[in-house]
Amino acid sequence: MIPADHPRYRSLVTRERLADCARKGVVAMEGLTAHGRGEAFDYLLGERTTTSALLAEKTAAAMLMAAHHPVISVNGNTAALASREIAALQKASGALVEVNLFHRTEERVAMIEKILTRAGADVFSGEAERLLPLSHDRAWCRRQGMFSADVILVPLEDGDRCGALAGMGKQVIAIDLNPLSRTAQRATLTIVDELTRALPEITRACTGLSETDRTRLLSTADNHYLLSEAIREITLRLSHALD
Amino acid sequence: MIPADHPRYRSLVTRERLADCARKGVVAMEGLTAHGRGEAFDYLLGERTTTSALLAEKTAAAMLMAAHHPVISVNGNTAALASREIAALQKASGALVEVNLFHRTEERVAMIEKILTRAGADVFSGEAERLLPLSHDRAWCRRQGMFSADVILVPLEDGDRCGALAGMGKQVIAIDLNPLSRTAQRATLTIVDELTRALPEITRACTGLSETDRTRLLSTADNHYLLSEAIREITLRLSHALD
Repeated sequence: MIPADHPRYRSLVTRERLADCARKGVVAMEGLTAHGRGEAFDYLLGERTTTSALLAEKTAAAMLMAAHHPVISVNGNTAALASREIAALQKASGALVEVNLFHRTEERVAMIEKILTRAGADVFSGEAERLLPLSHDRAWCRRQGMFSADVILVPLEDGDRCGALAGMGKQVIAIDLNPLSRTAQRATLTIVDELTRALPEITRACTGLSETDRTRLLSTADNHYLLSEAIREITLRLSHALD
Repeated sequence: MIPADHPRYRSLVTRERLADCARKGVVAMEGLTAHGRGEAFDYLLGERTTTSALLAEKTAAAMLMAAHHPVISVNGNTAALASREIAALQKASGALVEVNLFHRTEERVAMIEKILTRAGADVFSGEAERLLPLSHDRAWCRRQGMFSADVILVPLEDGDRCGALAGMGKQVIAIDLNPLSRTAQRATLTIVDELTRALPEITRACTGLSETDRTRLLSTADNHYLLSEAIREITLRLSHALD
């Protein structure tokens, strides 16, 4: 359906993949729009991993490796776009993988857990309870999973949930292409990069960094700097846009 | 489903409306993602009509009023978000309203024509032919409609179609929140504003502008200036983002 000569072919093919997942119910319809928001910011960043994003990815690896009980929270969009990358990161980091959805139904949870399992992840799927201080279905998680975590990686997260997790004293690592989003502002560490570029970099750093590197990264982590660098990259690109 | 205390409530409700339209087949799944891209740019513009956007809207009105055969092209997203606003603009401008879809099926065309008719538009729905110099379904339009138009308003258009229409010697007015998009760059005039804010401003200007105003607007129209102003507004907002 998409003409191969279209200049935005790759972006359109990804959209079509997400659309297929939406038809099956894996991705929420609202998740398609959220993806579009991310796409716009990625476009402004030049669709590449910036220097500051790579620093954030290495710092994220250091945080996951230093954690006692690290958890990776997975939603529909993440499973549709990067289930293999999640499985690889789990292997490298030893983190627990748990499904948490904004638009939650038991059926969607089961479908997403199946996708992750098929991709090689070991999914934590115990009984869920309303444990987070949030209204509606966003409150659900598992007592031995996310609720007990000290470090949580939340790719593509809602700002309220990110804030609630941080408010519970957890270290929250967000992956969010919008450096101005509430998620980006509330996370302990924000990776302003596209998911399928970010996850392999974190995985690589989990195994590749020395203990000295990790200690240095943890002691110098500065989210305000990372966000301001992302904004600077976007502004720089915009200022040359009509050249 | 969406908590009313959510800080992005309005944006989420619009997304849900589009999601409902996608379930019915009015909006293409890919249209949801495209909406998200627009949302991101609207966010960067401060979700308001800027001074330069208002100038573009007045200029668009002058172009439509000066046209011999003006046409408004409507796709699924436009019908879902702004069918009443399209009907009002048709009344004020005398333009022909024609449905043209990227993801085209006869069923979708019929559904969208019905929505527009119900909203009070007089829809031009003659026999469509492959008349535009484009691959795939994007080539379809009507000989007495868009094909013969001298001025076309294309809200939320694909860059290739916008370029093809301009290449046929038509004056193309685009409504696109992304000032860097191929559509924005290729249009004769680009309105960098959100659809439901832009259309009523064009309608108001169709009836409110004097002939002197319209002549002045037509003789001073400068799309490069309008796009650079939109980019300047975004850059300005970004530079204060972390204050």
